[in-house]
Amino acid sequence: MTYCVGLKLDRGLVFAADTRTNAGVDNIATFKKLKIWEKPGERVFALMSSGNLAITQSVVSILSEQIASHSNKGPTLMSVDTLFQAARVVGSAVREVRALDGEALAASAENFYVTFIFGGQIMGEEPRLFQIYSAGNFIEATDDTMFFQIGEHKYGKPILDRVTRHDMRLGEAAKMALLSFDSTLRSNLSVGMPIDLLLYNTDSFSAERQKRISRDDPYFQELSAGWSNALRKAFTEIDEFEI
Amino acid sequence: MTYCVGLKLDRGLVFAADTRTNAGVDNIATFKKLKIWEKPGERVFALMSSGNLAITQSVVSILSEQIASHSNKGPTLMSVDTLFQAARVVGSAVREVRALDGEALAASAENFYVTFIFGGQIMGEEPRLFQIYSAGNFIEATDDTMFFQIGEHKYGKPILDRVTRHDMRLGEAAKMALLSFDSTLRSNLSVGMPIDLLLYNTDSFSAERQKRISRDDPYFQELSAGWSNALRKAFTEIDEFEI
Repeated sequence: MTYCVGLKLDRGLVFAADTRTNAGVDNIATFKKLKIWEKPGERVFALMSSGNLAITQSVVSILSEQIASHSNKGPTLMSVDTLFQAARVVGSAVREVRALDGEALAASAENFYVTFIFGGQIMGEEPRLFQIYSAGNFIEATDDTMFFQIGEHKYGKPILDRVTRHDMRLGEAAKMALLSFDSTLRSNLSVGMPIDLLLYNTDSFSAERQKRISRDDPYFQELSAGWSNALRKAFTEIDEFEI
Repeated sequence: MTYCVGLKLDRGLVFAADTRTNAGVDNIATFKKLKIWEKPGERVFALMSSGNLAITQSVVSILSEQIASHSNKGPTLMSVDTLFQAARVVGSAVREVRALDGEALAASAENFYVTFIFGGQIMGEEPRLFQIYSAGNFIEATDDTMFFQIGEHKYGKPILDRVTRHDMRLGEAAKMALLSFDSTLRSNLSVGMPIDLLLYNTDSFSAERQKRISRDDPYFQELSAGWSNALRKAFTEIDEFEI
């Protein structure tokens, strides 16, 4: 499985993705699921993926080849004017992969299943965040729903539901996302470290605030231990149930 | 959906079940999913159910009718000597319902899907706890795995994974179970209050420590608000993430 979270806040966007892929429980590998494209000073995109790895890698390759190709005449992430158009470019790439591989997958009784969180900013617009489905269609985050999760989303949802505020600092939101990962990692083997993080500040048009967080990262270790202690302390401070 | 938790601890057993059933999101009702049978001073059983309500109710009815019937010659919950045998009686009831309804369900393209948490104590044995599957087979809780969850188990698993200890007091375990429910209720509409609770003390052979906890229960309100405040406070006490 996978776990990815994307947040759209007043100050920008936060992306966090695990790196575990597995075909069954006995075939586990590490793949980066957070792909970034940028033209510094003008546009930044981040794409996080869940689902069939062959499909998600093909989508990423198609999007990158479109940008690199000189003969490509269609819209690309680097040529579109809005994030909405960019999300349509991603959706079209999903449909292209389905056209290429869908029938063969069906013949092997494999579902064509992928989900993406896609966001970023193009000069002239606010940052935007989308969730893109297997059909290539998508929804956009709003002030009411400030985050999207894909993959194993349930373990880490309670902390996001409780703590997310639109006026959070990005470092605060990253801390929250890492706690959401910590809960998921403890309870589900199909989600694994390292975690790739991107903090995108509105109007920075730069993806420089990136970090890969490994299991022995001192900040993550402190956060994980501190949270456990705090939870246990909070737990003891609540009265016991009595009948 | 449903959410139920059963715990087997040194001091006894804890059972907690929500009461929401739904056929789609526009047909929601309240049904008790915690059924108790007891012969005070000798044996106590509790059964919590998840899955198709028609099936789970049929299983409960069969088990109750077996006990009430004078002509019944097979084993019943009141006649067996061990919890293992009692779990087999429950499993047989599941198979009986499949024999009665399975074909008709399949004809309507409905799955025969149920899961139970079943536990209790019979004089002469320690308390025991089982998870029973649609096939009527089952697994038993051990010192390594002290709890079972059925239904929407993911939201509420992190707190159980962190806090469960075999030497907990039952009131402490009930508090933990209610916090696990609180997280689930906040994040998933298909789980709903009231919550039915049973605390079974080892060798009490009595099911008197039962309570139904409604949304306006003062203890639950305090627990829910206190936990939210404690989590927010714990959150602020952890350093922010910086890149």
